[in-house]
Amino acid sequence: MRLRIECAYDGTDFHGWATQPGLRTVQDVLNHALMTVLRRESVATVCAGRTDAGVHARGQVVHVDVDRDQVPPHLLRRLNGVLPADVRVRDVGEAPPGFDARFSALWRRYAYRIADDPALVDPLTRHHVLVWSRPLDIDAMNEASALLVGHHDFASFCRRREGATTIRTLLDLSWSRSPAGLAEATVRADAFCHSMVRALVGCLLAVGDGRESPEWAGRILHAGRRDPSVTVAHPHGLTLEEVAYPADAEMASRATTTRARRDG
Amino acid sequence: MRLRIECAYDGTDFHGWATQPGLRTVQDVLNHALMTVLRRESVATVCAGRTDAGVHARGQVVHVDVDRDQVPPHLLRRLNGVLPADVRVRDVGEAPPGFDARFSALWRRYAYRIADDPALVDPLTRHHVLVWSRPLDIDAMNEASALLVGHHDFASFCRRREGATTIRTLLDLSWSRSPAGLAEATVRADAFCHSMVRALVGCLLAVGDGRESPEWAGRILHAGRRDPSVTVAHPHGLTLEEVAYPADAEMASRATTTRARRDG
Repeated sequence: MRLRIECAYDGTDFHGWATQPGLRTVQDVLNHALMTVLRRESVATVCAGRTDAGVHARGQVVHVDVDRDQVPPHLLRRLNGVLPADVRVRDVGEAPPGFDARFSALWRRYAYRIADDPALVDPLTRHHVLVWSRPLDIDAMNEASALLVGHHDFASFCRRREGATTIRTLLDLSWSRSPAGLAEATVRADAFCHSMVRALVGCLLAVGDGRESPEWAGRILHAGRRDPSVTVAHPHGLTLEEVAYPADAEMASRATTTRARRDG
Repeated sequence: MRLRIECAYDGTDFHGWATQPGLRTVQDVLNHALMTVLRRESVATVCAGRTDAGVHARGQVVHVDVDRDQVPPHLLRRLNGVLPADVRVRDVGEAPPGFDARFSALWRRYAYRIADDPALVDPLTRHHVLVWSRPLDIDAMNEASALLVGHHDFASFCRRREGATTIRTLLDLSWSRSPAGLAEATVRADAFCHSMVRALVGCLLAVGDGRESPEWAGRILHAGRRDPSVTVAHPHGLTLEEVAYPADAEMASRATTTRARRDG
């Protein structure tokens, strides 16, 4: 059977999601907990969004295949009993037929949070909110963001990887003030290439604090290659908030379609 | 001149507000920053709410008397440049005449935050949200809380101190679900005695998870002395959110009234 695990983590003390020899990663810590609780010598977890070092998650989704008779009662409580405090499983259960945490996903939603005034800086959120020393113009950032939304080649905002496409559909990129007054970006896409959200935010910060005009963001996009004047924003302001999946009946066909497109 | 400083801190790595020999406290760290920036050998800070070890603050208010010609420009930025990341000054300026951070205060407002469902547990807030393993009945907690609001002798919820009154006016004690789903208490009083908020919350947790009836909270209050069945809730769920002061013209008279009442 396949388990669907929803988990959250504070990325501060992790070298990102993916297993790396000798480094503390979320995948290793979760795998270790699963091996302990399921009494297995290895597990193969697959996640929806491979977060970078320092990036957090509230709605990360993971699948793992297990033998039905290995699954003990109270699995959620047992996993949380074994996991360190900076990783929590929020939900776990049998996945619907055809479910694949990565390939069944319809979209991923990230948030990027910024305190741009000393009165907004909260030591309790310092590990997941960026402090910016100049006030940000949300309207200008939204004007620039609107130029980036849609189906584009995001090569200007991606770390290039041999043979991988940088074409993505950016479904939503918008800024608002949180109830606490923070500048918050909502970033939603079918998928993201490596460091894409942080490069988009880095570009928009230059617009927000007045160094560049909103139109500049459009010019960067259409240039089609990485511009050294676009900085990649710090990872700690970024949180994977949600991954959406289709209704159970369409899970398998969604995975097939996505896999074909990525391979093609 | 007297400075009014509004500051916030993550209490996790502090042994509370007040200076204690050999221990890291917020007061010591703030005093050190003031001495550095003002080039003084000592400062005498007074705060509105002396938070315990592990308790946080978003709206702590402090006063300190300084020579006007010692105050450098950009004081806020300079203080934050010297302070560690777990303490931030949010605002600093000249206090109105007669202002006293402690004695001019009209009331203090605290929040206590609890995640009572595994789906609510967020590793990013683990240092300031209590995890409770049983679901809490907000209605029952509000019913019990209503019995505690008002002008009472809170001896049942205070650590007794020789010669100090335990009579307080509890202006507000109410529970609600935060947008994220957490159980949140709002606790507001003219002043609190030592560990009072945490003892109130500890009592209400027993009501919330069904171990005791709401009426039990009223019986505890009227017993008039500490009951060993009331546990003091963990400090890390508690945050000093706000301290309110009267209009500038009434600042001095408020301080005089409060001082007279406390001494009497």
